[in-house]
Amino acid sequence: MRAVIDLIYAKREGETLGRETIEHLIEAYTADEVPDYQMSAFLMAAFLQGLDADETAALTHAMLYSGEVLDLAEVAGVKVDKHSTGGVGDKVSLILAPLVAACGVPVPMISGRSLGHSGGTLDKLESIPGFRTDLDTQQYRQQLADLGVVMIGQTAEIAPADRKLYALRDVTATVEFIPFIAASIMSKKLAEGIDALVLDVKVGKGAFMKTEAQARKLAETLAGIGEDFGKPTVALLTDMNTPLGYAIGNWPEVEESIACLKGADVPDLMEVTYALAGEMLWLGGVADSPEAGIAQAQSAIASGAAFEKFVELVEVQGGDVNMLHHPGQRPGREPAGEVVAPDGFEGYITDLDALALGQLSTRMGSGRATSADAVDPTAGITLVKHLGDPVQPDDTLAHLHTRHVAQLDAYRQAFMEAITLGEEAEPVSPRLRDRYYRGAWQSA
Amino acid sequence: MRAVIDLIYAKREGETLGRETIEHLIEAYTADEVPDYQMSAFLMAAFLQGLDADETAALTHAMLYSGEVLDLAEVAGVKVDKHSTGGVGDKVSLILAPLVAACGVPVPMISGRSLGHSGGTLDKLESIPGFRTDLDTQQYRQQLADLGVVMIGQTAEIAPADRKLYALRDVTATVEFIPFIAASIMSKKLAEGIDALVLDVKVGKGAFMKTEAQARKLAETLAGIGEDFGKPTVALLTDMNTPLGYAIGNWPEVEESIACLKGADVPDLMEVTYALAGEMLWLGGVADSPEAGIAQAQSAIASGAAFEKFVELVEVQGGDVNMLHHPGQRPGREPAGEVVAPDGFEGYITDLDALALGQLSTRMGSGRATSADAVDPTAGITLVKHLGDPVQPDDTLAHLHTRHVAQLDAYRQAFMEAITLGEEAEPVSPRLRDRYYRGAWQSA
Repeated sequence: MRAVIDLIYAKREGETLGRETIEHLIEAYTADEVPDYQMSAFLMAAFLQGLDADETAALTHAMLYSGEVLDLAEVAGVKVDKHSTGGVGDKVSLILAPLVAACGVPVPMISGRSLGHSGGTLDKLESIPGFRTDLDTQQYRQQLADLGVVMIGQTAEIAPADRKLYALRDVTATVEFIPFIAASIMSKKLAEGIDALVLDVKVGKGAFMKTEAQARKLAETLAGIGEDFGKPTVALLTDMNTPLGYAIGNWPEVEESIACLKGADVPDLMEVTYALAGEMLWLGGVADSPEAGIAQAQSAIASGAAFEKFVELVEVQGGDVNMLHHPGQRPGREPAGEVVAPDGFEGYITDLDALALGQLSTRMGSGRATSADAVDPTAGITLVKHLGDPVQPDDTLAHLHTRHVAQLDAYRQAFMEAITLGEEAEPVSPRLRDRYYRGAWQSA
Repeated sequence: MRAVIDLIYAKREGETLGRETIEHLIEAYTADEVPDYQMSAFLMAAFLQGLDADETAALTHAMLYSGEVLDLAEVAGVKVDKHSTGGVGDKVSLILAPLVAACGVPVPMISGRSLGHSGGTLDKLESIPGFRTDLDTQQYRQQLADLGVVMIGQTAEIAPADRKLYALRDVTATVEFIPFIAASIMSKKLAEGIDALVLDVKVGKGAFMKTEAQARKLAETLAGIGEDFGKPTVALLTDMNTPLGYAIGNWPEVEESIACLKGADVPDLMEVTYALAGEMLWLGGVADSPEAGIAQAQSAIASGAAFEKFVELVEVQGGDVNMLHHPGQRPGREPAGEVVAPDGFEGYITDLDALALGQLSTRMGSGRATSADAVDPTAGITLVKHLGDPVQPDDTLAHLHTRHVAQLDAYRQAFMEAITLGEEAEPVSPRLRDRYYRGAWQSA
């Protein structure tokens, strides 16, 4: 390998590095043969000078093969997973995974935890008393074969280079760079043993990507890597300016997911869920088109098959299924307070700032500021009124779930600052914007 | 202070940082409160996004006040030092310091060691048996007051931030950036307690700055910092495409310096030495103009006063003055071999590659590849023929001094590859190019 200092120099000067060079650098870093201070200089040089598609694929490859790459060949069917770039109220995975499995496509899903204002599927699942996400590789493979769905956390064996690099990026202001973000996401997804992937790339105030241009670039990069590794990959661009659905927080989102699996109509949430399910069923080979897939998914909700699959999933992973049948019985779920519409106001909710509400929910206990923090499983916000809903005087706008009761007035004030009330109703846009597949964008 | 990560982020985004911000960052880094991996990300961001004059001055200030700043107020006179950006055969300091002191301007000089192809004044002085460069602050001040000249190495107390930053830059490909180079040089020079400074900014194959544009920018940055700190600073741009004088290596350069102090005419070496001396005598207030200063310096050589001052300097710093009077008696100085002109060749030396010859001398033992290496005091090259000199068949071109006698043939070959012979004489350009003072360039 060229000496590390030569690689830093080359990238600093804007050179494009070869695949082997990048792979060797990441291997050496993971083996502790390259010190953090050299890697951080390289990261900053790459951030400012760029990495092209080949370099990004090489980075992904190196991170992927820094650890275990699961082999699911013995599990029948086309294994398809979904990844979301993260948002507020995004409980789609909880509905989608059992729904797609119920339609016959195996879903091996490895998820992350919440960080900052953004929620994490693992924390949501673990808010179901008893639910275990720490299955080993053998259990993961076996459950997928038996049940068609498994939802676990990242094991220490998966992409250790990503963990090490992420920790360094986090303290050196080199996080928000699309090639790094894409390599981090894709190295972990490809390690799952999937055959195809659907991406929910979120854009807006509550998303990591604030502008559509950034989000499109990220979608193209992610999907490009997927195809580079021979995995058909569809990316959907969806709106994350306002929270998805009504619930924000771990258990509140599980409750809403249960309701949706039982057929409740939460339009924005189910619009996104069905769109992703349609793509997964199409990629999984059980539907002739994404549209046909959507129809199959709707049937699986209506028949109860999707909810039944979720119950089986929770049961086999150790969760208390009684909580799914009677969510109201979960200890600690009573709201601590509510937010009421201002005296004499009559009008509409014209905006709900997803970022501000995500940050508020985190402060209330549902999230973590640093990865070392613990989360309160029942903390969060349940909206009663959503975007476009009419508001009458004294209407309850939201329920607040928190242990920090002394802070309730501050939370109420923060909530009111996060939403916008208007006299006139404003049209609500669809969540789904565009669809990207094999180099082409099309209107969704 | 803003969190370090915010500073890295701001510089990454091309923001200009305030003086206090930079000063606090360097203070915290020196106090080990900022880890290397964050500082290296900052260094790379600064390298690629730039530092303006105010930021560079703030960096210098922080590095200067990271350690001891010597106070020479009690020493009478205007204290003036010279700094060279480094080259091959550059023994100017050895002649200049006693010469200027002999003319009545005190010269407090703190020098560095050789690294890579470039020589260092400390190693040259220490090739005089017994010469000590590790004086403490009190001895430094006293000797300057008593003798008018003192030549030592950087103490641990001077600019510790520079040492720490330099070590990090060295391994993170962030060395060759003018604001860092300038802050490093000036923080050490300003710590000496000087009142004014003359800079010898070298340009060409054997210099750190290969192009005149880079060298001019460095000269302007260095002089700008000097003036920013209230120290009148003159910069001379001088040619370093070919070795300065005939000798390369520690003791060989001391021998040549002794000869020049005794009045030998080595035209290129004395052109540079007199030009720098003239500026120092003018800045030091003993000459009405740099031109008048040159005349005074020439007199001090002719009268023997400069050589006498050198003898006193060597004696008081513990060196064997017998070696100055009889340089030929120094043990180990016999050349190991010589390079002879090719059979039947008749013509002229039309080029001598300073970089290649500096690297050859280093391989022969005179320099160090890393700062941990030891140097051979007598190793080096003594040219017999210099640029423009006529060459006859069988003429000796150079003497090679080395302990690695088995390598002599390889060294001879490398020497021949480093020089160019031509049939026609080519005109030899003057060393001195331009002069920079208080924002203006003028032809030297």
